[in-house]
Amino acid sequence: MIPRALKFEDGKLYLLDQRRLPAEETWLTYSDPDAVAQAITDLVVRGAPAIGVAAAYGIALAGSAGNAAIVRESAERIAAARPTAVNLRWAADRMLARLDRLSETDDVALSLLTEARAIHAEDEQMCLDIGRHGLSLLGDSPRILTYCNAGALATSGIGTALAPVYLAHESGRHVKVFACETRPIMQGARITTWELAQAGVDVSLLVDGAAALLIASGEIDSIWVGADRIAANGDVANKVGTMALACTAARCDIPFYVAAPKSTFDARVKSGKDVPIEFRSGDELSDRFSEQVSASGISYWTPAFDITPADLVSAYVTDSGIRPGGRYKKLDG
Amino acid sequence: MIPRALKFEDGKLYLLDQRRLPAEETWLTYSDPDAVAQAITDLVVRGAPAIGVAAAYGIALAGSAGNAAIVRESAERIAAARPTAVNLRWAADRMLARLDRLSETDDVALSLLTEARAIHAEDEQMCLDIGRHGLSLLGDSPRILTYCNAGALATSGIGTALAPVYLAHESGRHVKVFACETRPIMQGARITTWELAQAGVDVSLLVDGAAALLIASGEIDSIWVGADRIAANGDVANKVGTMALACTAARCDIPFYVAAPKSTFDARVKSGKDVPIEFRSGDELSDRFSEQVSASGISYWTPAFDITPADLVSAYVTDSGIRPGGRYKKLDG
Repeated sequence: MIPRALKFEDGKLYLLDQRRLPAEETWLTYSDPDAVAQAITDLVVRGAPAIGVAAAYGIALAGSAGNAAIVRESAERIAAARPTAVNLRWAADRMLARLDRLSETDDVALSLLTEARAIHAEDEQMCLDIGRHGLSLLGDSPRILTYCNAGALATSGIGTALAPVYLAHESGRHVKVFACETRPIMQGARITTWELAQAGVDVSLLVDGAAALLIASGEIDSIWVGADRIAANGDVANKVGTMALACTAARCDIPFYVAAPKSTFDARVKSGKDVPIEFRSGDELSDRFSEQVSASGISYWTPAFDITPADLVSAYVTDSGIRPGGRYKKLDG
Repeated sequence: MIPRALKFEDGKLYLLDQRRLPAEETWLTYSDPDAVAQAITDLVVRGAPAIGVAAAYGIALAGSAGNAAIVRESAERIAAARPTAVNLRWAADRMLARLDRLSETDDVALSLLTEARAIHAEDEQMCLDIGRHGLSLLGDSPRILTYCNAGALATSGIGTALAPVYLAHESGRHVKVFACETRPIMQGARITTWELAQAGVDVSLLVDGAAALLIASGEIDSIWVGADRIAANGDVANKVGTMALACTAARCDIPFYVAAPKSTFDARVKSGKDVPIEFRSGDELSDRFSEQVSASGISYWTPAFDITPADLVSAYVTDSGIRPGGRYKKLDG
């Protein structure tokens, strides 16, 4: 079964604790909006679409007291839980807009919960639509390379880059997925291999550096990644390591697909040069191993994202259809 | 000071235990040839040039009994200590050839030690020659990206890819080195950062996936890697992850240099397709962290090396000079 990142049952939000994957599958229960904000900060739930839905439910939980001022305060705290996630602000704004439209006779709690459920349902549908469009690009026995986690656990549905994989698998095709481990946080190793294994999809793990040999060896048919932001010119900001795959894919003439909801396209940003790159702590390079793995006193260069130039992208697979990228014509050749 | 992988003093071989870097600098002492063989097997010393020199001294130690048969048996055990290292067999053959040339009046122990010292001195000179030729390709304040460890600790001298770095540093230029951590064994993080820091060279560590952003950002002037084998057509077998750097370097028009002794060029191998790629254990992807980092029951794709096509190489920097690669002309442009 394809695992889910969250569910809302009996008036409570349940989050799969992704920090403990793959060793343990632990569900945490939330009825307090501030606890939901903390869970988002602490990465219990991650992935822009998933945290948007979690935020909506968190704000709905704040409605149980029936007090609009309390809802507004909670919404601000939840929206501030992580600084860079666009979906968080978007979900909070949408919930507050619903609040603003309520008349005195409306049930605050019920109305907000209905709005959160709508956001959840739309997110699930977005995943299915990306999957349906992407499926048309896969062969009978597709061999896919993916990076980081753009799967079910990054959304409230079946994922973005992995949505076509799941639909192909469910339709009986044999899909083989190669997952790059995605240093330093290892989302590919920890989360992507776990969710694919749970769903019964054939998955192999490789170190990020091995992807070029895999591509050059003719062992894969296409590369599928998600996106954190897509600039007006088509440049793709995604987890650091994505660009090298795109360079190698171009060199080896393998399609490079970016799967993302249309909300990821940011017309206000002209090109990748205008996307600020978050730099993280050097501790992530030295502290996760059980032994010291780098010399003392050195520097660390620790970007969290990189920019893939638009001309290296074969196509953008969105919930509203397939948009050609700079390498699109090569697909017809 | 530039650290060394080994030294021979007072009739004993001393090896820096590279398994314990960067946490501890421990020197182990050897007077028994079989213990040297075990040290090579156990990766106390690694890097093709370095293990060739260690093997030569190990065989010289076997000469102390003055018995040619004992020397021959020891040489075979040492040559078999690692299966893929060409230098090991080469060093053993050269020591045995010296043994064969001895007359009855020659001192076996002294003659073998003299031969081992010659091998050691030639290896040190090879590094200096690579460094001297490579230095001509560096600017006044060179910013270098390197991969894995092709430094002093892979040789008995000042390294191959890092030799020009050390010469530039010693001549007073400000050199900045970016070292890729090199998953899964982390030679870049563990060994390259340590030896550069010991030598006082400015070094930053990055995850392998971050190299493309670094290159695209214009933060480096050239890329320097070593080689395990170079085919007749110029294809380069090196630590897995090298090829992606070459693809990105070509895309971003940054020179990509391969530094290796002329003995690395293997005329018997036509192209990279004919180089067998060693695959290693999946344990290396899941077991070095203090926690489980991949789902249970999945597959692993674990090559140790990859092939960089000759047309992506700017130049080969060898001890006998600079040979143009497929991208050489771009350097003049």
